[in-house]
Amino acid sequence: MAGNMAGTITVADLLKHGSAGIGTFDGIDGEVVILDGEVYQAVADGTVNHVTDPQAKLPFASVHTPTDLEAVNLTGVDFNLLNGSFIRQHELQNVFAALRLTGTFSHVKIRIMPKQEPPYPNLLEVAHMQALFSRDQVKGTIIGYYAPEIFGSVTAAGWHLHFISDDRQFAGHLLEFSAPQATGDLQVFDMLDQHLPVADRAFRQSEVDLASLRAGIAESEGNQE
Amino acid sequence: MAGNMAGTITVADLLKHGSAGIGTFDGIDGEVVILDGEVYQAVADGTVNHVTDPQAKLPFASVHTPTDLEAVNLTGVDFNLLNGSFIRQHELQNVFAALRLTGTFSHVKIRIMPKQEPPYPNLLEVAHMQALFSRDQVKGTIIGYYAPEIFGSVTAAGWHLHFISDDRQFAGHLLEFSAPQATGDLQVFDMLDQHLPVADRAFRQSEVDLASLRAGIAESEGNQE
Repeated sequence: MAGNMAGTITVADLLKHGSAGIGTFDGIDGEVVILDGEVYQAVADGTVNHVTDPQAKLPFASVHTPTDLEAVNLTGVDFNLLNGSFIRQHELQNVFAALRLTGTFSHVKIRIMPKQEPPYPNLLEVAHMQALFSRDQVKGTIIGYYAPEIFGSVTAAGWHLHFISDDRQFAGHLLEFSAPQATGDLQVFDMLDQHLPVADRAFRQSEVDLASLRAGIAESEGNQE
Repeated sequence: MAGNMAGTITVADLLKHGSAGIGTFDGIDGEVVILDGEVYQAVADGTVNHVTDPQAKLPFASVHTPTDLEAVNLTGVDFNLLNGSFIRQHELQNVFAALRLTGTFSHVKIRIMPKQEPPYPNLLEVAHMQALFSRDQVKGTIIGYYAPEIFGSVTAAGWHLHFISDDRQFAGHLLEFSAPQATGDLQVFDMLDQHLPVADRAFRQSEVDLASLRAGIAESEGNQE
């Protein structure tokens, strides 16, 4: 997020660490959804690619292996519910967790980051270029993660969720949603493996501007209400 | 650091993850140094215990298995050197790394946190109670970690180093030091395993005050120059 947008891990290596998750491709090219080991990439024109090249590289991704799942069944669900009673009920505020929710969504609004070329702009600049799409009455899956507030400079604090429709034609980073009912599962993690691309020269040599990074995260994630 | 000071992992479990490191005991009782699987605890009266109870619990610790070591040999070494040319030369700014340095130190200033009882105060309040000690011409070992600035709400950003003398009678959290020469090793990590005590009720239910947490970290770590 601090401008290190070149891919550093291959799809093949990433999938060794989990079969479900979210991410983005080289140059923050789009929004990635990983379900059952299948990798989908929503790109900025609104189309969705099924990614089958194991050598495609990602600069950032979070994956996990679904296990120890707690079933959830929510009615009248939206970000207000997830950010409020859901966090309190499941005592998520200090932990990492994965959430998967399927259902028929009455409204879904997503954004898709456009691919950048070097020299990379900072996240705040890219956040202003994001493409927005929405769809009503769409069947699909929400997948993503909850991270504690104190990790908010490292990753997106709170919920970071992506959406993909059942027909795999509509996907992106989730900004708004609502559903009369959705079911799925929650998984609380006792360990986060933070991999850093220490062999990548550009990563090692880059300087992070913490203030600009925080502003960029807020701008690109801040629409969740 | 956010007031969760009760021990949540035993020495026996911690040592499964590494044989070297730093930490503190239940109630932030002192400063821990782990070398070659031996655990030492400096307590606030300035004495050092060799901890042999495998069931003693720690609320926070960082450990690693020394491997892939890069030898370092430094002259005129102090925090100015570590914070400046050393970080630049080894391109540490975006990675986690462990450092071990041995030598005869012309000056060492340490602090030791005093044990707290519930209800726990916040780190900022405890930082004002820390005991300070210094020693000149002391043989010993510096051990600890470097963390990138963006992890500064999660752990101490920059260097977090502890010291222990060769005679194991003088130890603590390192605030100042200087040595005409010191040798040791540096290890850059490509993965950080962040374990969180998700089964601990007090941890799950606690609320973190991020502003107070950052002030507490700055106060307790800020003397390194």
